[in-house]
Amino acid sequence: MNNHTELENLLEEKHFNLLRKGISEIEPADIAALIEKLSIEKAVLLFRILPKDSEAEVFANLEADTQETLIRRLSDKEISHVIEELFLDDAVDFIEEMPASVAQKVLSHATRETREQINRLLKYPEDSAGSIMTVEYVHLKRSMSVQDAFTKIRKIGPDKETIYTCYVTDPERRIEGVISVKTLLLSEPEQALGDIMDTNLILVHTDTDREEVARLFEKYDFLSLPVVDSERRIVGIITIDDIVDVVQEEATEDFEIMAAMTPSEKPYLKTSVFKLFKNRIGWLVLLMITGMGTGFILQGYEEAFLAVPLLVTFIPMLTDTGGNAGSQSATLIIRGMAVSEISPKDFLKIAWKEARISALAGVVLSIVAFLRVYLLNYGEPDLLAKSLVISLSLIFTVFMAKLAGSMLPILAKRLKIDPAVMAAPLITTIVDTSSLIVFFSIAKILLGHLM
Amino acid sequence: MNNHTELENLLEEKHFNLLRKGISEIEPADIAALIEKLSIEKAVLLFRILPKDSEAEVFANLEADTQETLIRRLSDKEISHVIEELFLDDAVDFIEEMPASVAQKVLSHATRETREQINRLLKYPEDSAGSIMTVEYVHLKRSMSVQDAFTKIRKIGPDKETIYTCYVTDPERRIEGVISVKTLLLSEPEQALGDIMDTNLILVHTDTDREEVARLFEKYDFLSLPVVDSERRIVGIITIDDIVDVVQEEATEDFEIMAAMTPSEKPYLKTSVFKLFKNRIGWLVLLMITGMGTGFILQGYEEAFLAVPLLVTFIPMLTDTGGNAGSQSATLIIRGMAVSEISPKDFLKIAWKEARISALAGVVLSIVAFLRVYLLNYGEPDLLAKSLVISLSLIFTVFMAKLAGSMLPILAKRLKIDPAVMAAPLITTIVDTSSLIVFFSIAKILLGHLM
Repeated sequence: MNNHTELENLLEEKHFNLLRKGISEIEPADIAALIEKLSIEKAVLLFRILPKDSEAEVFANLEADTQETLIRRLSDKEISHVIEELFLDDAVDFIEEMPASVAQKVLSHATRETREQINRLLKYPEDSAGSIMTVEYVHLKRSMSVQDAFTKIRKIGPDKETIYTCYVTDPERRIEGVISVKTLLLSEPEQALGDIMDTNLILVHTDTDREEVARLFEKYDFLSLPVVDSERRIVGIITIDDIVDVVQEEATEDFEIMAAMTPSEKPYLKTSVFKLFKNRIGWLVLLMITGMGTGFILQGYEEAFLAVPLLVTFIPMLTDTGGNAGSQSATLIIRGMAVSEISPKDFLKIAWKEARISALAGVVLSIVAFLRVYLLNYGEPDLLAKSLVISLSLIFTVFMAKLAGSMLPILAKRLKIDPAVMAAPLITTIVDTSSLIVFFSIAKILLGHLM
Repeated sequence: MNNHTELENLLEEKHFNLLRKGISEIEPADIAALIEKLSIEKAVLLFRILPKDSEAEVFANLEADTQETLIRRLSDKEISHVIEELFLDDAVDFIEEMPASVAQKVLSHATRETREQINRLLKYPEDSAGSIMTVEYVHLKRSMSVQDAFTKIRKIGPDKETIYTCYVTDPERRIEGVISVKTLLLSEPEQALGDIMDTNLILVHTDTDREEVARLFEKYDFLSLPVVDSERRIVGIITIDDIVDVVQEEATEDFEIMAAMTPSEKPYLKTSVFKLFKNRIGWLVLLMITGMGTGFILQGYEEAFLAVPLLVTFIPMLTDTGGNAGSQSATLIIRGMAVSEISPKDFLKIAWKEARISALAGVVLSIVAFLRVYLLNYGEPDLLAKSLVISLSLIFTVFMAKLAGSMLPILAKRLKIDPAVMAAPLITTIVDTSSLIVFFSIAKILLGHLM
């Protein structure tokens, strides 16, 4: 039964038995999507008739505001069941999203052990490996046989987020090796884990940046990766399903920064007007003030454009083309560094490449612009010189724009600033000024006799 | 031994035994990275002493151009070993990257079965589920017991890309259920798969878009997903490690389209100057020609700016601010739709939200601009009116920019055009025209007596 309306009708008519049966055939993520659409009364009702073993998974899939309203309606016993059954990384995400009062209420209903584990995880810095790891993994001893390992996995497996990669640790919980269930299945029952485990360990530390963790997953195609503390003791694991989310979130963050915004943590539709305004206004004001600098340049050329008013009509086209040319280069370099295909030490290679590209692009653009200006202003005095002014300015502008666009993100990276800051908006503002200076300088040379 | 130089020295001095030992302790992805750095002679030498069972995995991790040079140096027997040992999805990726002559040579050294499978996979459209699936999965029968299942997994497991999710099929290979190794491990040996398999099936078709597949993985946190043909027969599976790559590639594609480029398939440093030029020039020319339209608008206001030259100095700041305001909104909406947080049917909610944000942003920007223009041009005649012109124009510009920026991507989506096309460059060009019309219209009203 995949039909939402059908389920809603059963709920409406209180056919709880049919409903229970119907729900057991639906993925938790889909049940969560259904609950999002219901009124709060019906949502609580539906949540209460969920099978006990899927309650936590459905809950983890709900939006933060629905989790909050739901928690406010549930009994103490129900809250305590939810928090205990949630995987710890989901529990931490949930607690982080809640207002302090709700978070405290929930934690007060957890067992002491769960509460301590959650609090420990909450302390890791945002965007660190520690903040996305879970502590529910399978650890084994090197002296165990394959058969012992299966016995242990069967016993503790149901509560672990993944059983497919197991970690072999010493008595101090220092990690000694890794062994997959695939290897266990393909080995003889009496073999010792110490003999078959893989000792080429790729580890991350609790404070490793989560983008770096994502890169390791991409490179090695792991299902999970162990997280260790400063003494190489394993403290948790990161699973690949969370990495898909990390990759999406990091890309979204870069999109936002590159469009001159403070990154937002919540989806657009869930963010308040004021918060969205706050994320955008800072850069808008800053770039506007910087952009006014271009005005001063133009004031200096008042005589020139009063003598040749046609020059004014080229300004938007010239600055826009510079902005576009620059942001093309900046985007490729910023993205290339984000996915580690480009490193700052490639800067000479990049500069030489961009120089050649801008030579090609500059020539094509200047020919098109020349023809268009020449043909559309037929009859205008000194037309050849005027067309040449715009044509030559374009070549210089594209060249400067592409060089600035490709080099500034690299410079930012060297200075430990996020390269994404050096994207279209900032490049445009920088390129505006220089392109207008070039433009009017060339105009003065070629059209000086008119000014 | 993680030290590249050390390995290179061993290679130099032909200490092959030490080298073999050293290499067995390194991840295939790292060996591939080392090979990339070697001269072709040394690369071939190192490749030849790799343990036979890691050769294919190392090969799959090499860049396309290194794969090509290597293939040209390998013997027929070596080529045939590589192509047979590669997982089929890696083999297809590799064949796709090769020039036709090399691809043919490689295929001629494959067994007939492998060749047929590769050719079948090559036929699926790019970006479809078929193009990223692998055909190496475990399928079981519903009548099998858990014990039978383990026996089969042990037998065929080594050649399968993942064994952790197994598919239960009928004699026509139509998919009946799915069962994880975790479930198998937690069940009794004599239970029949038909009784314990999960029949809530989430399937994709061979022609499902890979972005849609990625969304399913994100939503349900699967390790793999079955791909079926039009008769519900399973033809392959997609594994989550490939989804991480899909998510990165799709984000990169959007970054490139949003910066007005044709998306490139290869990394920046591996793309030729001419190809990069070709990817960029089309949009640059198109946007330049459109941008010239703004020139015509300005020509119509020649009288106005000749009478009040100060107006010209505001042009770049006004158009840049409009562009920035618009691209902020466009970016959030494009990205929101890409990750399915926003759907076109939310357009009224979005328009109302953006209207309020732009009211706030417009007022703040206009106050800042007013103060700055008023204070910095002290002594200029009619200064109050002139400052008001720029101030009021900003309010209108920001409003139009944010509305166009948020609505155009939605319109594009409705018209089945990629919303990413409606990003900064195009928005800027559109907003330029309308903001200049507003600007000069307001100027004519407030400063008409000067013109």
